[in-house]
Amino acid sequence: MIRHLFLLISLFSGLLYAEDGSRLWLRYTAVDDHTARQRTINLQHSDAITQLAKKELDSYWRGPSVSMHVDRKAAHLKEGYQIKAEKGRIEICAAAPVGLLYGAYHLLRLQHTGADVHSLNVEEIPSYDIRMLNHWDNLDRTVERGYAGYSLWRWNELPGKLSPRYEQYARANASIGINATVLNNVNASPEILTLDYILKVKALADIFRKYGIRVYLSANFSSPKVLGGLVDADPMRKEVKDWWKNKVNEIYRHIPDFGGFLVKANSEGQPGPQDYGRTHADGANMLADALRPHGGTVMWRAFVYNPTQEDRAKQAFQEFVPLDGDFRDNVIIQIKNGPIDFQPREPFTPLFGAMRRTPQMVEFQITQEYLGFSNHLVYLAPLFKETLDADTYCSGAGSTVARVTDGSIWRQKKTAIAAVANIGEDRNWTGHDFAQANWYAYGRLAWNHQLSASAIAEEWIMQTFTDSSGFVKPVRQMMMDSREAAVNYMMPLGLHHIFAFNHHYGPEPWGDIQGGRPDWMPWYYHNADTAGIGFDRTTNGSNAVSQYNEPLRSVFNDRQTCPENLLLWFHHVPWDHQMKNGRTLWAELCNRYDLGVQTVREFQKVWDRLEPFVDKSRFEHVQSKLKIQTKDAVWWRDACLLYFQTFSQLPIPYELERPIHELEALKKIKLDMKHHN
Amino acid sequence: MIRHLFLLISLFSGLLYAEDGSRLWLRYTAVDDHTARQRTINLQHSDAITQLAKKELDSYWRGPSVSMHVDRKAAHLKEGYQIKAEKGRIEICAAAPVGLLYGAYHLLRLQHTGADVHSLNVEEIPSYDIRMLNHWDNLDRTVERGYAGYSLWRWNELPGKLSPRYEQYARANASIGINATVLNNVNASPEILTLDYILKVKALADIFRKYGIRVYLSANFSSPKVLGGLVDADPMRKEVKDWWKNKVNEIYRHIPDFGGFLVKANSEGQPGPQDYGRTHADGANMLADALRPHGGTVMWRAFVYNPTQEDRAKQAFQEFVPLDGDFRDNVIIQIKNGPIDFQPREPFTPLFGAMRRTPQMVEFQITQEYLGFSNHLVYLAPLFKETLDADTYCSGAGSTVARVTDGSIWRQKKTAIAAVANIGEDRNWTGHDFAQANWYAYGRLAWNHQLSASAIAEEWIMQTFTDSSGFVKPVRQMMMDSREAAVNYMMPLGLHHIFAFNHHYGPEPWGDIQGGRPDWMPWYYHNADTAGIGFDRTTNGSNAVSQYNEPLRSVFNDRQTCPENLLLWFHHVPWDHQMKNGRTLWAELCNRYDLGVQTVREFQKVWDRLEPFVDKSRFEHVQSKLKIQTKDAVWWRDACLLYFQTFSQLPIPYELERPIHELEALKKIKLDMKHHN
Repeated sequence: MIRHLFLLISLFSGLLYAEDGSRLWLRYTAVDDHTARQRTINLQHSDAITQLAKKELDSYWRGPSVSMHVDRKAAHLKEGYQIKAEKGRIEICAAAPVGLLYGAYHLLRLQHTGADVHSLNVEEIPSYDIRMLNHWDNLDRTVERGYAGYSLWRWNELPGKLSPRYEQYARANASIGINATVLNNVNASPEILTLDYILKVKALADIFRKYGIRVYLSANFSSPKVLGGLVDADPMRKEVKDWWKNKVNEIYRHIPDFGGFLVKANSEGQPGPQDYGRTHADGANMLADALRPHGGTVMWRAFVYNPTQEDRAKQAFQEFVPLDGDFRDNVIIQIKNGPIDFQPREPFTPLFGAMRRTPQMVEFQITQEYLGFSNHLVYLAPLFKETLDADTYCSGAGSTVARVTDGSIWRQKKTAIAAVANIGEDRNWTGHDFAQANWYAYGRLAWNHQLSASAIAEEWIMQTFTDSSGFVKPVRQMMMDSREAAVNYMMPLGLHHIFAFNHHYGPEPWGDIQGGRPDWMPWYYHNADTAGIGFDRTTNGSNAVSQYNEPLRSVFNDRQTCPENLLLWFHHVPWDHQMKNGRTLWAELCNRYDLGVQTVREFQKVWDRLEPFVDKSRFEHVQSKLKIQTKDAVWWRDACLLYFQTFSQLPIPYELERPIHELEALKKIKLDMKHHN
Repeated sequence: MIRHLFLLISLFSGLLYAEDGSRLWLRYTAVDDHTARQRTINLQHSDAITQLAKKELDSYWRGPSVSMHVDRKAAHLKEGYQIKAEKGRIEICAAAPVGLLYGAYHLLRLQHTGADVHSLNVEEIPSYDIRMLNHWDNLDRTVERGYAGYSLWRWNELPGKLSPRYEQYARANASIGINATVLNNVNASPEILTLDYILKVKALADIFRKYGIRVYLSANFSSPKVLGGLVDADPMRKEVKDWWKNKVNEIYRHIPDFGGFLVKANSEGQPGPQDYGRTHADGANMLADALRPHGGTVMWRAFVYNPTQEDRAKQAFQEFVPLDGDFRDNVIIQIKNGPIDFQPREPFTPLFGAMRRTPQMVEFQITQEYLGFSNHLVYLAPLFKETLDADTYCSGAGSTVARVTDGSIWRQKKTAIAAVANIGEDRNWTGHDFAQANWYAYGRLAWNHQLSASAIAEEWIMQTFTDSSGFVKPVRQMMMDSREAAVNYMMPLGLHHIFAFNHHYGPEPWGDIQGGRPDWMPWYYHNADTAGIGFDRTTNGSNAVSQYNEPLRSVFNDRQTCPENLLLWFHHVPWDHQMKNGRTLWAELCNRYDLGVQTVREFQKVWDRLEPFVDKSRFEHVQSKLKIQTKDAVWWRDACLLYFQTFSQLPIPYELERPIHELEALKKIKLDMKHHN
């Protein structure tokens, strides 16, 4: 009986969809003629964006009649909207056409998450002006840290041939409020600024415009030298300034709503103003001056560090804080959420809130460079929220990173947020079906950083899979638990950057390369020895704690008050240190690694139970990925515990599942993985 | 504190031994002069065997004075002995010198298992006259189904150079009562019967004699043709008979206590009497006649089957039962414990007890051809006991296989038992330290088939590792559980022979070879289809049940009464068949496979806890093997459940740990393993 039910359900699911995940969370079904006749979609404007909003509602809206209008006086809404539903009618009001489009998607989201749409009084104002994706896509279509196939951008076909996926991409972004995209890698090829490429970029911009999305480019600081034939790219040289002005003017001739530049300068080998004895401000301001007449913006990255004696975690702060006040107001300093590099868990970067006269923005990483690529199910909204909600105390309690960057503490001309995309040409866009949720969640938080990770997960699940509570509840719980699970099986208690060299997929806490940069070596970060483990960043150590405002400085500095999930980030802790639960550090470390493994095993059970709710294709896809994740979690646990045990000389607590690998065998694993596809 | 204890113990263990497992269970420590002066070892005979017995006691015995004497009238003791200890003196009495040697080892065993040796009244009479190891060693020193290195026998060095391991081997065997060894593979090279090799064999026999061990050889039935240049090897041809007589006489000239021949004939491509239209009896009797004047014996193997329509499990019975009464009395039919081939679990071979006028003996396999090679910890005494204690009902209830073969139901001129050795030139003899226990347990059961598997395990552990109860109890339990664990993760509920082709290491239930013999294909044995799984050997199927005596025939024939651990051996059972515990067959199968995995995971925990009791070398050796076993158990579970699921179309019960492998990936695994080393 159960067997036949199982067969039947499998068969049924198989017939329903030839499912490849390509529809993302946009699974609206077209309304029939009868429904369409029951209601009207009215508008007062006929611009392309408003027309698009009408078209989406015409095609998919099953609720009461809708009328949309732009009210230029409602400027406080920015790109937001108001929705009022009463007496069988719905009104969407916005200050700009794109607000109507976002309002339309709001209605469709309500419809597809089963909300009541007959009585609404909504006002939505976006948290950030610029809600941006960063694509680390190279011009040869490889994607740095990309795990979902080659780049979406078929440069060799552009501008002549336009893939239908360009518009699908724009629509998906618009549906969650993303309005900006940097098309190329921050490790930028100068070639992107040639006319050839500008025309290709224009073709994409022309498609995206209708969806309210502006295009940005990563600029290589040496471009004037490489493309313009100048003797150098010194930002104080007039010819260099002129070259940039002319180049910017050329871009705007073709792309009048061009957004601006993202720049990685003097970082990991990239050229920059320091090559000529100039400051980051000198470089950024030169570009800002060129962009200013057109309303363009410079995102200048703070991800800079050098192989010096200084703690890498301190360097961005040290380089940028002295420049506070030196930047033009159309420059925003783009700061990674943590001071090292997108680790499973980091404290927030202390630079947030440390520059009162300089606009700042957060850079997250959606692509899972340090979180199992597109093999591991790791829902990132809790990580994003952890940073956004972190209190910097820069202007008293409540000075969260979100408020430091959204203009509510210090006014910014424009506010922004960015994240490195996880999108490629895979049919399901993101490699792992659940990685779509990270794209979705980032967009939703960029729109409204007050949303809860759990609420976002729930609406994503309902739109992407089904609104059956038998599915939604366990999947939401799995997603909510997944980031902590990854932290546990990879690097619990504040451990960081003990990844395999270069590709960053598996564990390599023993990693060492003769003559390599210390700050690229795992031992630099874990510092395991017979006494204990962890990076001493206290006042007795690198003193990175001093970059945080009180009370954080003191809280982090004291081993007894430091949050245990960051303990080994800030402290070198003896193996027998007693944790709050009474366990020794060593025992707790073992328990955390094991908990990570057991949690992923539970995910497998959760998912397998849900087979009747999911189409066969996505069910098996996710099932298969979870198998890999479990194997990898065991690999991580065994590698880290067996390696750290060579220092602790202590047994793994005997109640825990035992390792199945040999340390020496694990050390020999060298995966042939690129750091791009 | 715990940490320091751990360090200290590790260090201490490390210093105590440079341990390589080579000392087996023979870890006697030499007595000091003072102790030696306290007691005397007296004897009345000065033959080599008795001298050896004295030497062992002189060197290692710490108890009261011992006097030993042979009493030729005590013939009922056979090779056994009596030990009486009272008033501070011990007497060992035996009917032959070897009985004194066995008695000496008995005392040493008591001493090293902490028994009271001051009050003893022991009478030990061996269950079988011939207690034999079969080495499947080839003359090129590979070992068929050997997993402990190359053959012990260094044929190229013999007879000139004698490895010290020959005597160590003999001593180990004598210490557990083994008195016979077949030096070469049953797939025999004729070359073993050349004079060159006879002289090499003589060199070994000369060493073994002092330990009461007689040498036997596997004979190739074609030898007269290959070595003697005769036209054929027809056993009715006078020249053939004469060749064998002369050859046997030649052997006895060099080895006066030569034991006889083991013959695999007309089986798996080996030559035999059927090549000339003769019967097994014709062939065996010819050899028996040649051996008779010297007191030699023929072990004629019943392991015969042909790729016919007939159920392979029935063929030995069909071929041999009609020959009952036709064999000479110095022929013993050597019968594998189960009707197929040393599977993790089989019912006993129905040929046992089916030939009232023909001596029979059991052949076990100590080497783990079908039980994870020397990688898996599987204690085999429970398997041996299961066969020995199985009731054939051939002469009423209580006609166990043990009693059918030990002469207590029907008189045999000589009784015997054999097992395929797991010994090679690895320093620890058997590859896995715990595989030593299987050699040990076989010897102890050959001596006394009434011993319990648990008691044997306990005495082996105490002699091999330590007598600390903190170690003995958990290890004994682990050993006792280990065979059932292997059955569970490999082939529970009567499944059999779904091993990877040829090497038999991992799972290959899907195995199929175009044009291959059906009876070498897994599907021949499991018969999985959408209706169910199992081999129908009932009266509606192959009718193999008819070869068993009542009440077994009826018990096995009825799905409701058939023991569930043999269910799929005898029945093709629907997936939704309700088991005694209420689960469906499919759910029970899943639970069994999972139980196998979880049990091995528990073994890892048990062993790791015992680190303080064991030298570092053996601790890590076994720890490492258990890791492999756990990985293999998961591999087996996933392979079998995912494959059988393609037929059952049922979910694996959701409370169970999920597979981590993909079926298609598992199907691609082709291990480069030989079936010999």
